[in-house]
Amino acid sequence: MGDKPEVESISPYGIARSTVQGSPLSKKELEQYDDFFKASLYLSLGMIYLRDNPLLKEPLSKDQLKARLLGHFGSAPGQIFAYMHFNRLIKKYDLDSIFISGPGHGAPAVLSAAYLEGTYSEVYPEISEDEEGLQKFFKQFSFPGGIGSHATPETPGSIHEGGELGYSISHAFGAVFDHPNLIAVTMVGDGEAETGPLAASWHSTKFLNPITDGAVLPILHLNGYKINNPTVLARISHKELEYLFRGYGYEPYFVEGDDVESMHQAMAATLEHCVLEIRKYQKQARDSGESFRPMWPVIILRSPKGWTGPRKVDNKFLEGFWRAHQVPITDVHTSPEHLAVLEKWMRSYEPERLFAGGKISEELKSALCPTGTRRMSANPVANGGIIKKPLKMPDFRKYALKVDKPAVTMDASMSNMALFMRDIVANNPTNFRLFGPDETESNKLGAVYQAGKKVWMGEYFEEDKDGGNLAHAGRVMEILSEHTCEGWLEGYILSGRHGLLNSYEPFIHVIDSMVNQHCKWLEKCLEVEWRVKVASLNILLTAVVWRQDHNGFTHQDPGFLDVVANKSPEVVRIYLPPDGNCLLSVMDHCLRSSNYVNVVVADKQEHLQYLTMDEAIIHCTKGIGIWPQFSTDRGEEPDVVMASCGDVPTHESLAAIDLLLQHFPDLKIRCVNVVDLFKLISHVDHPHGLEDSEWTSIFTDNKPIIFNFHSYPWLVHRLTYKRPGNKNIHVRGYKEKGNIDTPLELAIRNQTDRFSLAMDAIDRMPHLGNRGSAAREKLHNDQLTARNQAFEVGIDPPFLKDWTWPHNGLWKAVIPKLN
Amino acid sequence: MGDKPEVESISPYGIARSTVQGSPLSKKELEQYDDFFKASLYLSLGMIYLRDNPLLKEPLSKDQLKARLLGHFGSAPGQIFAYMHFNRLIKKYDLDSIFISGPGHGAPAVLSAAYLEGTYSEVYPEISEDEEGLQKFFKQFSFPGGIGSHATPETPGSIHEGGELGYSISHAFGAVFDHPNLIAVTMVGDGEAETGPLAASWHSTKFLNPITDGAVLPILHLNGYKINNPTVLARISHKELEYLFRGYGYEPYFVEGDDVESMHQAMAATLEHCVLEIRKYQKQARDSGESFRPMWPVIILRSPKGWTGPRKVDNKFLEGFWRAHQVPITDVHTSPEHLAVLEKWMRSYEPERLFAGGKISEELKSALCPTGTRRMSANPVANGGIIKKPLKMPDFRKYALKVDKPAVTMDASMSNMALFMRDIVANNPTNFRLFGPDETESNKLGAVYQAGKKVWMGEYFEEDKDGGNLAHAGRVMEILSEHTCEGWLEGYILSGRHGLLNSYEPFIHVIDSMVNQHCKWLEKCLEVEWRVKVASLNILLTAVVWRQDHNGFTHQDPGFLDVVANKSPEVVRIYLPPDGNCLLSVMDHCLRSSNYVNVVVADKQEHLQYLTMDEAIIHCTKGIGIWPQFSTDRGEEPDVVMASCGDVPTHESLAAIDLLLQHFPDLKIRCVNVVDLFKLISHVDHPHGLEDSEWTSIFTDNKPIIFNFHSYPWLVHRLTYKRPGNKNIHVRGYKEKGNIDTPLELAIRNQTDRFSLAMDAIDRMPHLGNRGSAAREKLHNDQLTARNQAFEVGIDPPFLKDWTWPHNGLWKAVIPKLN
Repeated sequence: MGDKPEVESISPYGIARSTVQGSPLSKKELEQYDDFFKASLYLSLGMIYLRDNPLLKEPLSKDQLKARLLGHFGSAPGQIFAYMHFNRLIKKYDLDSIFISGPGHGAPAVLSAAYLEGTYSEVYPEISEDEEGLQKFFKQFSFPGGIGSHATPETPGSIHEGGELGYSISHAFGAVFDHPNLIAVTMVGDGEAETGPLAASWHSTKFLNPITDGAVLPILHLNGYKINNPTVLARISHKELEYLFRGYGYEPYFVEGDDVESMHQAMAATLEHCVLEIRKYQKQARDSGESFRPMWPVIILRSPKGWTGPRKVDNKFLEGFWRAHQVPITDVHTSPEHLAVLEKWMRSYEPERLFAGGKISEELKSALCPTGTRRMSANPVANGGIIKKPLKMPDFRKYALKVDKPAVTMDASMSNMALFMRDIVANNPTNFRLFGPDETESNKLGAVYQAGKKVWMGEYFEEDKDGGNLAHAGRVMEILSEHTCEGWLEGYILSGRHGLLNSYEPFIHVIDSMVNQHCKWLEKCLEVEWRVKVASLNILLTAVVWRQDHNGFTHQDPGFLDVVANKSPEVVRIYLPPDGNCLLSVMDHCLRSSNYVNVVVADKQEHLQYLTMDEAIIHCTKGIGIWPQFSTDRGEEPDVVMASCGDVPTHESLAAIDLLLQHFPDLKIRCVNVVDLFKLISHVDHPHGLEDSEWTSIFTDNKPIIFNFHSYPWLVHRLTYKRPGNKNIHVRGYKEKGNIDTPLELAIRNQTDRFSLAMDAIDRMPHLGNRGSAAREKLHNDQLTARNQAFEVGIDPPFLKDWTWPHNGLWKAVIPKLN
Repeated sequence: MGDKPEVESISPYGIARSTVQGSPLSKKELEQYDDFFKASLYLSLGMIYLRDNPLLKEPLSKDQLKARLLGHFGSAPGQIFAYMHFNRLIKKYDLDSIFISGPGHGAPAVLSAAYLEGTYSEVYPEISEDEEGLQKFFKQFSFPGGIGSHATPETPGSIHEGGELGYSISHAFGAVFDHPNLIAVTMVGDGEAETGPLAASWHSTKFLNPITDGAVLPILHLNGYKINNPTVLARISHKELEYLFRGYGYEPYFVEGDDVESMHQAMAATLEHCVLEIRKYQKQARDSGESFRPMWPVIILRSPKGWTGPRKVDNKFLEGFWRAHQVPITDVHTSPEHLAVLEKWMRSYEPERLFAGGKISEELKSALCPTGTRRMSANPVANGGIIKKPLKMPDFRKYALKVDKPAVTMDASMSNMALFMRDIVANNPTNFRLFGPDETESNKLGAVYQAGKKVWMGEYFEEDKDGGNLAHAGRVMEILSEHTCEGWLEGYILSGRHGLLNSYEPFIHVIDSMVNQHCKWLEKCLEVEWRVKVASLNILLTAVVWRQDHNGFTHQDPGFLDVVANKSPEVVRIYLPPDGNCLLSVMDHCLRSSNYVNVVVADKQEHLQYLTMDEAIIHCTKGIGIWPQFSTDRGEEPDVVMASCGDVPTHESLAAIDLLLQHFPDLKIRCVNVVDLFKLISHVDHPHGLEDSEWTSIFTDNKPIIFNFHSYPWLVHRLTYKRPGNKNIHVRGYKEKGNIDTPLELAIRNQTDRFSLAMDAIDRMPHLGNRGSAAREKLHNDQLTARNQAFEVGIDPPFLKDWTWPHNGLWKAVIPKLN
């Protein structure tokens, strides 16, 4: 072992060529592995083709085939090969491991494994380990009412579906953080490896501590082809591949070839070497108490796509070419010759011998498969809800901001919430982490570093002591890749822990698709009985669109909410707390919840505070409410409803109420605030939705509603189109305007939005007559003056920023009427 | 040169350490570069701080500072350094080059360059090259009504804003494809380098042909820090960095240190070596006519963040630490001591000497700056509309599908359109490319390979001859990274060419954020007078949600349209052609258009065809229309409007009409089809929107509208909430349901949606009375039967698939009434 010959060929064919030499398998073991390999391959083909005659006891006829052939064979052989050889080491060293199947449509490989290990029949007793069960197992695959062709939530042992490619490595690292004994064996497809998220995630080793965390053993599968193209990494030189992985911080071990016997020996020897390397590094760090970043092993497995299939059919390449990607031979219904080719191929896996009695022999199974939860398909880590412990939560009310009078004191809601977060970090030192793309400090959450520093396994410089907040063992994970952060968090949660991602609002769109996929995973899990609910995935969005003081047009996009709102109502929640106490209450709720994607939007700057903690709890529990302290309708029919959702919009809406009352002290205004966005939608469409009668009691069905919204205005219309009186809703929100793009400019415009809101209200109250017109003109001029002043000086308008309720003594004039 | 010592230190301080040795600069040149460096640095600080006293002719007082300090200094010194030293080579070798500023907030560097080269004053004459101009230049930066702190479209020479990080390398490659003489000097920030899209895009060299394409010279800027964290690449060993870039396929050249004089020599020598390497490789390939993939040079520039600033202020690290990221000293308004530090620092750049007379000396300028379009800030490539040539378009009518009767013949709209695409590729061999993430063949566009193969500069295997369609010089660009494809396409278009991205619909969400940013770029360009319109960015989405036969729940997401619909109506267009001739007409329109993001959604399978080419042209030109051939209202008031948008939904909607007529032959049905989605929105909100009177003439304002939509149903509600009669719109579309997730299952359900649509219509026509109830029950049972049969057999329901208009001879029964 350790001898590293120069391996120049980059063909996947021939006798095994490997970095690690050795023949650890006896002749008998070799035979057993070969049998197990064949049995697994047979199952993979069976899933794709067979509706009946599962063991080919009869000659194969076309009516025993599925009517439509669906599924993918290409990557199955390589994945099976890795899985079963790793099982040897689980048994030999009693390893705690999971298997992550990165290549697209890898289900045949992991389903075969789960079935042969017995796990599948344990969770789905109707899919028994006999001929009848096998027939059902085959038929359900890619069949209506059955299961999909990825490692979907129905797959025992899976935390990674692989429908959308690119996240296997970040999921794997997420799963092993704070699981010091876990090894995540991670197959990475060479197609997947071309994606951005995957390319970035190799650097996760700079954030993995060999003392407190487990290990990822990546197996890059140079399968050679994608759907219709060669892969980049399969067509560069050996030297480049070696360089690339050393550059990423790994020691690469090649296993290449297609000769099965020598490949068995090479893979067995290589995997064992890698496991021993991992254990050596862990021991060294743990014995010494000194963390370091080793060159972790990575295996580069080059085997033909569709390995062990026919190299050519009709003189066209199949094995080792992209034609083996999906259903390898497609016209078996119409071509008797090809049906015969298929049958011969399937029989080459010896189903009658290997599944005599309907299942593989006990001897083979017990020789090769681990048992109980040592089976990768039965490891509870991959059904994280089982091992999840509730967070130890401090009482969020302890962090309450003092609010003697509403809308008088300015306070920093986010920095205050950071104290709550800090104590959650402190209370949960092994099962909660905070993730973010280099924005935690900028997002005013820096207080968490008091309880848990940023994990950093890179080199240290002198200046790091000067506020660097870096440590080998920490609780905050920061890399400038939203993809990697999100992937880590997903892996961390799905393996039974808790976490929060904080991000600038505009760039959360970078992971739209990842969040989509996680929502789908959660939604599907609700259908899978044996899946236990995991912690919610919490996303805190700040540096919001309205306060991009340092940034410009590129940083203005509140549209992530639209993406989330399209997902299943069973799994998505959106909160826009209006002030600091509401933020605390909402965060407490989200961190205690299960199985949701919670999105919380809150600005990081100082803001007026409105509610005491008791009021905030009531408001957040209801999710929507009339705010009597800013209303003048005294429970009667209002002239206008001034509604808001989001902290900055709430501020402006209240200021607009103040402006209106300056002009019309007798106006009956109802102030409504929305925290839980899904309150707006019908209860038929979302469990949080108001009933229409509740809606009408808040918004009326015939009065103008001026709704100031955080995001694009159409989202409110999309949520409320069915509501009584929906024609009366006028929404102000963010709209794309290329002419508002310098830093600060939008902030100024927004801080003068109060005038627009007041004008909108007047426009919808014709009964105000000439007084209305006069007030409108005054408001218009005041707005222009305010904007021009701010533009001239280049600052936030201080006279507006300092606005508090009540303005100009109106408090006294108006409020007594309420009592 | 070429001597490569082991460089072990990874500190950015000290005498220059470089891979390439040499001192190409004379003493006088050294002084000149030092002066130019200082002048540029002075401008960078001036932009951030100064509102007045631009040349510090008076002592600096706080009232001359901007009221709010905004902007970023950290990466400016390194970027300026690279830019000015590359100018030497432009002059020496008459190079055709552009500069791409990857690091975030890099505007001070490129704005300084554009100003000192004179370009800035040419395009903005009011920002003149004198003291008054300089004051305006400073004041406008990050100021309301001014310009942003990224390389926004207002920046001469920019095609890459750098607001959202990660796309500099893919943009650069896009710009040099088919521009054989162009060199894109590309600064890559080490923060940016952590992102997924950037990490993946280094592999672009496997798609760059040294004969037909230009070259990218990346300069990885190891600036050391992001906002609040060290960067990964600045904290790994030298060896790992070298490995990483060799692994990516580049030869790395280090330039490291902070000693200005030796760094000048090292950078000058290194850049020259790299330019000569590039020219050598190009010459070798071009002289021999044999393309190959060289190890292209990459420069790794390690210089301190905020280089040349004070190392410490108040004993806290500034230069070379993350504190130098943004405004380096923030409290200059309130701290006289810090104001003095700032003034001393700014005076160290000698503004009085260097800008004597209000600008740098002609001698310095002419010695160091290229002139005319050789200036990187004035290269027409970076204002691509100038050099854009119209596509040579074949007449799309030539590719018409034959439609004798509507809804009778099945045809493959996409494969047919591929012929049109093939001929566009053939007609435009140097300025049109097709991009896609390994899905072009799967998307039925493979015919294009007849005119232009897939570019592939990786190794070739024997089997590639067997339908591999790979070539060193080709027109199709495929890598399994939507980010890289999109980045290439953006770079290609912004530098004056044309292109199309094809992708599976669900995974286009991967690039939501990139498309957002491109929309913002286009929107902003409309405000910049000297920017000439570029070709539209065309996105063709196929493998649509309704036909994920091989895939499952993960592949179902038609929500990209929601993201796009939030962007400025000035720049976004969405088309859903219902059949093959409409697809041709729409594609022709999109490819001829300018300055839009056009999204076209069309399925790739076989479909019924409805319109002749002449009809299709009329329909697509109008964008929406009543289809009399499927209507029975004969221009009278209809009982119900059956509307559809999208090819699969149109098919189902027509089948529903057929079902309704089977039950109610006298029903007055109006059939409406929407191609141009923005027809639905008010003309006030989008230039394509219908006026309300037009809306009513099509949809009525009082009849039930059963709208079958391709995407999430709420998008239609969001677009139509203002419309007369909007309460009558019932939309069916895609909704997330975890229990519909196996391959084929959704397709089956969708193919039985016709029954649901017919039932929806009946539910909204109470006047049908008992006959309605009876028909409804029958439809419900028929639907169940159809679904159960299809589920049982595991196929598309053939009896439904073969549906044509008219069903059961109804044509004869119904149609005569229309005549």
